[in-house]
Amino acid sequence: MHKTRSSLGTLLNHVHTSGPLSRAALAERMGVNRSTILALTAELVGAGLVREERPAGTVGAGRPSLVVTPESERICVLAFDIAVDRLTAARVGLGGPVLDRRETTRPRAGADLETVVSKLAVLGRELVDAAPAGTTWVGIGASYCGMIRPGDGMVRYGPELGWVDQAFGSELERALGMGLPVAVGNEAHLGAQAEFARGAGIGFSNLIYLHGDVGVGGGILVGGDLLGGEGGYGCEVGHMLVNPFGGRPCLCGSRGCLEAETGEYALLAEAGRTGQSGRDAVRGVAEDATTGDPDALRAVAAIGDWLGIGVANLINLFNPGAVIFGGMLRDLYPAAAPHVQARIAQHAMPVSRERAHLRLSGLADDTTLIGAADRGFATLLADPAKAGVSR
Amino acid sequence: MHKTRSSLGTLLNHVHTSGPLSRAALAERMGVNRSTILALTAELVGAGLVREERPAGTVGAGRPSLVVTPESERICVLAFDIAVDRLTAARVGLGGPVLDRRETTRPRAGADLETVVSKLAVLGRELVDAAPAGTTWVGIGASYCGMIRPGDGMVRYGPELGWVDQAFGSELERALGMGLPVAVGNEAHLGAQAEFARGAGIGFSNLIYLHGDVGVGGGILVGGDLLGGEGGYGCEVGHMLVNPFGGRPCLCGSRGCLEAETGEYALLAEAGRTGQSGRDAVRGVAEDATTGDPDALRAVAAIGDWLGIGVANLINLFNPGAVIFGGMLRDLYPAAAPHVQARIAQHAMPVSRERAHLRLSGLADDTTLIGAADRGFATLLADPAKAGVSR
Repeated sequence: MHKTRSSLGTLLNHVHTSGPLSRAALAERMGVNRSTILALTAELVGAGLVREERPAGTVGAGRPSLVVTPESERICVLAFDIAVDRLTAARVGLGGPVLDRRETTRPRAGADLETVVSKLAVLGRELVDAAPAGTTWVGIGASYCGMIRPGDGMVRYGPELGWVDQAFGSELERALGMGLPVAVGNEAHLGAQAEFARGAGIGFSNLIYLHGDVGVGGGILVGGDLLGGEGGYGCEVGHMLVNPFGGRPCLCGSRGCLEAETGEYALLAEAGRTGQSGRDAVRGVAEDATTGDPDALRAVAAIGDWLGIGVANLINLFNPGAVIFGGMLRDLYPAAAPHVQARIAQHAMPVSRERAHLRLSGLADDTTLIGAADRGFATLLADPAKAGVSR
Repeated sequence: MHKTRSSLGTLLNHVHTSGPLSRAALAERMGVNRSTILALTAELVGAGLVREERPAGTVGAGRPSLVVTPESERICVLAFDIAVDRLTAARVGLGGPVLDRRETTRPRAGADLETVVSKLAVLGRELVDAAPAGTTWVGIGASYCGMIRPGDGMVRYGPELGWVDQAFGSELERALGMGLPVAVGNEAHLGAQAEFARGAGIGFSNLIYLHGDVGVGGGILVGGDLLGGEGGYGCEVGHMLVNPFGGRPCLCGSRGCLEAETGEYALLAEAGRTGQSGRDAVRGVAEDATTGDPDALRAVAAIGDWLGIGVANLINLFNPGAVIFGGMLRDLYPAAAPHVQARIAQHAMPVSRERAHLRLSGLADDTTLIGAADRGFATLLADPAKAGVSR
């Protein structure tokens, strides 16, 4: 998208991802002179997308330089996050703030397309009704825990919900009835892009984002672009076979996949907590490991070993600048780090790992939601003049 | 390189990779009119890089359209291929023909930088001396079985020869004394690019090339570009851990790497032929497997299983259009195909593999050499006007 972005879109994208910026900073980032920035800013102000104001906290003598600030309260998207055991909807403003949110849990199995879409539509309508008068909705984005066809948001494969070829994007669009398409992306793809834009991945154009939930998803940036492959289905790290001998059964039907060995089920089973589930249970194991609980320690060690093998393989393949742990892996990684790092030292080539930083997600539990919001903003950011927003 | 290519370079690159082309075909490929092609061609003819001639085999009535043909006999590079048990040097003409070659075997161990460079320099000088008068040398390229630093051709890591941080590119440049830099690349990287340009990978911009020798190297194209990562060391498929429990020892110091389980040593050991080595021994096992030799069948099955796991993991990660087997894997794959394909069916997601073609290298044993030659031609092809070639 950014390759064909207009100058207006480039400027708007800078303030969207970085927050308020002075004209001088914008001129430097865009490599144009300040009179060009002045003209572009005037046009964006006219469309109600940005305003110019004094920077917050300015005190003392001298006239401070005005900063170009996104109209976050007025210009909004609906963002949805469809995870395994919860549905989230949010109103997200230009610039990225989550202004309002609704969340609901749902049964893990038997969630068919119609049920999920109608629940999401209810949450979406609540957010629209609760939004202040004058809110302009410029897009809708959704993060889904499965393989998504680019273009129409068809869920090709979503093992956790048991979906195959479900027309999720178009059905949600119809149910919401806002006259806006729903841009759907795989949760880890969106997470990678969100962390690169405004999280722990800023500055790392070769980046691997691993999103743990019940499964483990991957989003991989190569030279700043999402690794799509032939059909947009690249980055499937979760089904990398790491344990070829009697590995744990995976929802995909195989055994020994990375997500089967490192996901929530494996962790809780190793810790002897098979009755439990969900993010709080994962956090419980991680916390108990730090206080020396032997079952928790054993579980964290086992998952850390398999995770480290997977990460080592990815480092060899991608020579990345950063590997970012998100979702439940963000909770687990600190306790598992010694095991992960030992495996990387053992199995990743020194030359391949010499520039690889290991980091926790910078956007915490909102990584995928923010990524979904950014998909919702994509049309506006590509060319604000064509997006037809007006006061 | 091609992103900043001049129009002159684009035209020359078309005839370099595709062979003689009519002006009409060039106009269509480049999206420009025929008078532009006429002008560009005239400039290239003036520099002695192409000529216009009647297509070969033209008979019958009517005046045939002239074709633009690379001056392959006159415009040449030196290309080197440094493999584990042999050194190859060749004179390669514009358009890709191997016009002359020299080859030497060498001991597998104890080949230090000085020895290898001096042997290569001898081969190179023989080729220069044997070349016809009027030969114009426009570059030097080299393929090396290890991790290469872009820019200066430093071998960061070459386990098969036991090299770490050896200044191979600059030393070979000095030893040859031709006043031309040596563009060094990893053998599988070069192989991937050569197969994409003129081999089994034409049309597949998301491509995985696997090069078997003693080790297994990978070259991966993502959207037509080589996957480089932070330092240019991406694509290290050979050290993907596939067998975490008591796998075979690898030259890297670890165990159970893809290349340890699928390389020449593993194949010959599984076949009970530990006294043998080299490409002929590999071909012997593959041939014996097709005639039902039980030891050979067992070896091919074992290697095919591990190779299939590696390929399945790569298909999940890259959603490729083609996976190409080169080097000794070209000899082995036909016999091992049922095992490889069964593992792919078992471990690669259906959505990830739906567009993946499995193919044998189209350039046979010259894949890496042709890739090296193309690196040698790169400066000329980027901008023929600046390359300073003249009659």
